[in-house]
Amino acid sequence: MRRKGLASMAVQTVDTPRTPGTGEGHGPAVDLGPAAALSCRECGERFALGPIFACELCFGPLEVAYDLPAGDPEALRARIEAGPTSIWRYAPLLPVPADVAERPNLNPGWTKLVRADNLARELGVEPGKLHIKDDSGNPTHSFKDRVVAQALEAARAFGFTTLSCSSTGNLAGAVGAAAARAGFRSCVFIPHDLEQGKVVMAAVYGGELVGIEGTYDDVNRFCSELIGDPAGEGWGFVNVNLRPYYAEGSKTLAYEICEQLGWRLPDQLVIPIASGSQLTKIDKGLRELIELGLVEEKPYKIFGAQAEGCSPVSAAFKAGHDVVRPQKPDTIAKSLAIGNPADGPYVLDIARRTGGAVEDVNDEQVVAAIKLLARTEGIFAETAGGVTVGVTRKLIEAGLLDPTLTTVVLNTGDGLKTLDAVAPTTGPTATIRPSLDAFRAAGLAH
Amino acid sequence: MRRKGLASMAVQTVDTPRTPGTGEGHGPAVDLGPAAALSCRECGERFALGPIFACELCFGPLEVAYDLPAGDPEALRARIEAGPTSIWRYAPLLPVPADVAERPNLNPGWTKLVRADNLARELGVEPGKLHIKDDSGNPTHSFKDRVVAQALEAARAFGFTTLSCSSTGNLAGAVGAAAARAGFRSCVFIPHDLEQGKVVMAAVYGGELVGIEGTYDDVNRFCSELIGDPAGEGWGFVNVNLRPYYAEGSKTLAYEICEQLGWRLPDQLVIPIASGSQLTKIDKGLRELIELGLVEEKPYKIFGAQAEGCSPVSAAFKAGHDVVRPQKPDTIAKSLAIGNPADGPYVLDIARRTGGAVEDVNDEQVVAAIKLLARTEGIFAETAGGVTVGVTRKLIEAGLLDPTLTTVVLNTGDGLKTLDAVAPTTGPTATIRPSLDAFRAAGLAH
Repeated sequence: MRRKGLASMAVQTVDTPRTPGTGEGHGPAVDLGPAAALSCRECGERFALGPIFACELCFGPLEVAYDLPAGDPEALRARIEAGPTSIWRYAPLLPVPADVAERPNLNPGWTKLVRADNLARELGVEPGKLHIKDDSGNPTHSFKDRVVAQALEAARAFGFTTLSCSSTGNLAGAVGAAAARAGFRSCVFIPHDLEQGKVVMAAVYGGELVGIEGTYDDVNRFCSELIGDPAGEGWGFVNVNLRPYYAEGSKTLAYEICEQLGWRLPDQLVIPIASGSQLTKIDKGLRELIELGLVEEKPYKIFGAQAEGCSPVSAAFKAGHDVVRPQKPDTIAKSLAIGNPADGPYVLDIARRTGGAVEDVNDEQVVAAIKLLARTEGIFAETAGGVTVGVTRKLIEAGLLDPTLTTVVLNTGDGLKTLDAVAPTTGPTATIRPSLDAFRAAGLAH
Repeated sequence: MRRKGLASMAVQTVDTPRTPGTGEGHGPAVDLGPAAALSCRECGERFALGPIFACELCFGPLEVAYDLPAGDPEALRARIEAGPTSIWRYAPLLPVPADVAERPNLNPGWTKLVRADNLARELGVEPGKLHIKDDSGNPTHSFKDRVVAQALEAARAFGFTTLSCSSTGNLAGAVGAAAARAGFRSCVFIPHDLEQGKVVMAAVYGGELVGIEGTYDDVNRFCSELIGDPAGEGWGFVNVNLRPYYAEGSKTLAYEICEQLGWRLPDQLVIPIASGSQLTKIDKGLRELIELGLVEEKPYKIFGAQAEGCSPVSAAFKAGHDVVRPQKPDTIAKSLAIGNPADGPYVLDIARRTGGAVEDVNDEQVVAAIKLLARTEGIFAETAGGVTVGVTRKLIEAGLLDPTLTTVVLNTGDGLKTLDAVAPTTGPTATIRPSLDAFRAAGLAH
């Protein structure tokens, strides 16, 4: 795997990028702020900004390359701090036009970084060192609002009028809500047999919701067909033809964490792995902050977290492999259940390069970790949050994560969306008649 | 009903407040910031700060009276703007110690004020004039986090170690989460036959959760017994013996709305009515901002919103009555289903004094309004939000709410908690085989 490092993403000029067939005509007219081009993560070839996602030459995945603001870091920091309390405070570092905050969108981000001293005590971490980045505070209660907000701006720039995606949960709600507010049509594809709660959440924003008779894989294959067909013309699939822009939204997690730590890098991060894109983009965001002089450079370790029932990256890490062997997912952490994660190899590379690791926990440990976080910090996390907290515990016990260093653990979603995970083991302490005698008899008075 | 107006709550000194029996010894040692005393909302008698809620003389409800910061409004405004992005930016105006933001709590508030131009278009409101104050962004996704955060500080000040409440939903989660994070024991009482989802949300934070065999009224009666019994000693019931402090949390909605409008009063507010406490405290907050010179004084109208199936205040308003006749609730808007609202008479007084009104909508209109808000602004509201949006539409149609003036409509909770309200009428547009032919046949391609 060829990697161009910082040079491919930070302060640089564009050398006449190629205009690929599918993106033709978009090049000069597109205003996506500091986004200068798309570059291939494998061969480094550059393309004009457009709704494309794979390299013409080597089929590698494309990512956004920037002309980032050069100059005085203090001035940039002040400009960010004076900005809105949303991801748009970082607009100068994102593939969005400068006036993005004035356009109708959900204004996600600037979620809480919670100093988790109670949890730290339980895990044996030094007081003041453990933090939860709690993305359940986003508008539709998952980190997906961050990435969809970028895709929306790309969709506007490319003249799309419909936002689309395949999804089994969080993404469907994020796309439906963002499209509604922005005045876009939306058309979301889901497996036809999803739980009713998830269907309601996907449908309530009034867009088209199409149940596909088949598995999630069938849904994905159908969406790929649709992109190449006239029926899908004018459609922005946030996680397919808009993916290079979409993925950049995860950089904002890195920016917020560092700013909320007082413009400091954390020493260790624990990040969930679904496709692996979030982890790689957080690493990209951290390196940009260093490059721009917004934080002081120092080593940091990135740890990836998976559920045992879908742990292809963890398995490859432990086996010392560079490639990821696909798995058939079987875990309650459904938002992480991607058996063939596109960014798996990049995740392995980052975990190894930074001195981190990739670990997994079983479903029982996920449930226990959800409850632990709720009981200690009052944060009710999605199963993905149970995975990261559970993995954090395991890494500490294994001596891989240093409990004396500043550590940030991500919770990327909301427990309200995965009630089934804890319902069987969560209920009243007691059920009594409404009398003081019954209350005392139940041993509750003290 | 005797009312002391601004004099009872704003810049003033305390004239040796009475020390009631139950509050004895708390007086001078208690640091609750600018809170100076409790004063009776009926007879005006003053008492030292303590865990009491009814006047010794006339049994009227007590509320917090303040020594609010006198001096330069510009300086106070600057101090607030430099504060944390939570309700604690307003700590100088709340019954909490100055260092409140450093104490472990959920840091609620500073939720979004959403400019709702799409909704405005549908309702015939001028562009830029309609805003949704969306409190689903709070840590446990309802406005209850605001009030519980105040009660928590009062509980600390009075040496309580257990937080308690009776609840059928939002409050249970807010108390459980706040207690967990603050290191308090919690004991929450619910009717034993609540839906499983609500039970899980109340239980997941690990406090005691007690199902009571009886109705919500039985639960409440039991809690009143418990407060007077040694078994309940050291217990802070957030909405009973800590109610005067708890209720003040709703003032922060007024503060945030005005600051987010650029330190301007809105012309019209539409606020849901359960006990009516939220509406009366928002009015109190607006008057404080005027008194302190933080906003320019101008007339504003306050509108109350109820569900038809529990509309005692609306009925009294329409009948021209000063008293509220209790009703037996029967509505899907369960978080507003208080048949005998304690603050009903105060609400009537405020609606009439400000030139507002109280209106109600039926369950069908609530569901339609939830969907309207989701479809236009990407906000999935709780049934209470359906009530306020539905009432807004009705008030405009009746010519009572002026569509050319700045209007703020409250959404106090999250649609994820009341999925059942919309589930029967919300689902996929179509279910198809994964093929382009099936897609075209379903009429989805265009």
